Amino acid sequence: MRLEHIGIAVANLDESEKLIAKLLGRDPYKRETVAEQSVTTSFFTGGSDAAKLELVAPERATGPIQKFLEKRGPGIHHLAFEVDDIAAEMRRLREDGFELLQELPSEGADDKLVCFLHPRSTNGVLVEICQSKGA
Amino acid sequence: MRLEHIGIAVANLDESEKLIAKLLGRDPYKRETVAEQSVTTSFFTGGSDAAKLELVAPERATGPIQKFLEKRGPGIHHLAFEVDDIAAEMRRLREDGFELLQELPSEGADDKLVCFLHPRSTNGVLVEICQSKGA
Repeated sequence: MRLEHIGIAVANLDESEKLIAKLLGRDPYKRETVAEQSVTTSFFTGGSDAAKLELVAPERATGPIQKFLEKRGPGIHHLAFEVDDIAAEMRRLREDGFELLQELPSEGADDKLVCFLHPRSTNGVLVEICQSKGA
Repeated sequence: MRLEHIGIAVANLDESEKLIAKLLGRDPYKRETVAEQSVTTSFFTGGSDAAKLELVAPERATGPIQKFLEKRGPGIHHLAFEVDDIAAEMRRLREDGFELLQELPSEGADDKLVCFLHPRSTNGVLVEICQSKGA
């Protein structure tokens, strides 16, 4: 399990992109809308081989990102770990007592299959596991 | 600015170490108490060259980590970016309108000088910049 990216919930993607670009001293390298999750994402490198930063903005007034923003405001949303075989890892995590938020992987940004774990089983951290579809 | 680690606030370091070790499939590689910040930290690799995970537990019933736990419960606490020259970077960030939480760097875990930025200037993300003292 390698830390692949950190998801940051934002309310206004244009404004937050500018702010994070100023903070890091570099521009985002791509934007992508994920229809299945009703979000638009913007990616920054973490520097060298470090995990990426993914800004996630809601595309409509419902959905988990919108709810997160309403409850806690903008901020760090999730940690994502890349795995080689998401189905096998989902089985392993379930057997180890972690609570999965979905029965099957779903389509994520960046050409990935993703699955989220409930924060109450992971020390309050919303954890995503992801597998590159090209892999 | 390279993503160096993610800080995760925990209430009970022993229990959270076991949980995160089970999640990641690997053990922490060191523990360190930072007297100046009244915390004990436990480090996991992020996998390959990815940013580390730092569990941070309060050493006494006051201080910022204890306050964070009381307000929000355990969870992701901060993102830390490594810089070459922390004094120069603090000047640059101040000039760029970011709000620093300290006038001078302080001693952090892992042989580093650290400085925190106020989340209200960074999209709700508590950002640490850090410089290795050996550098």
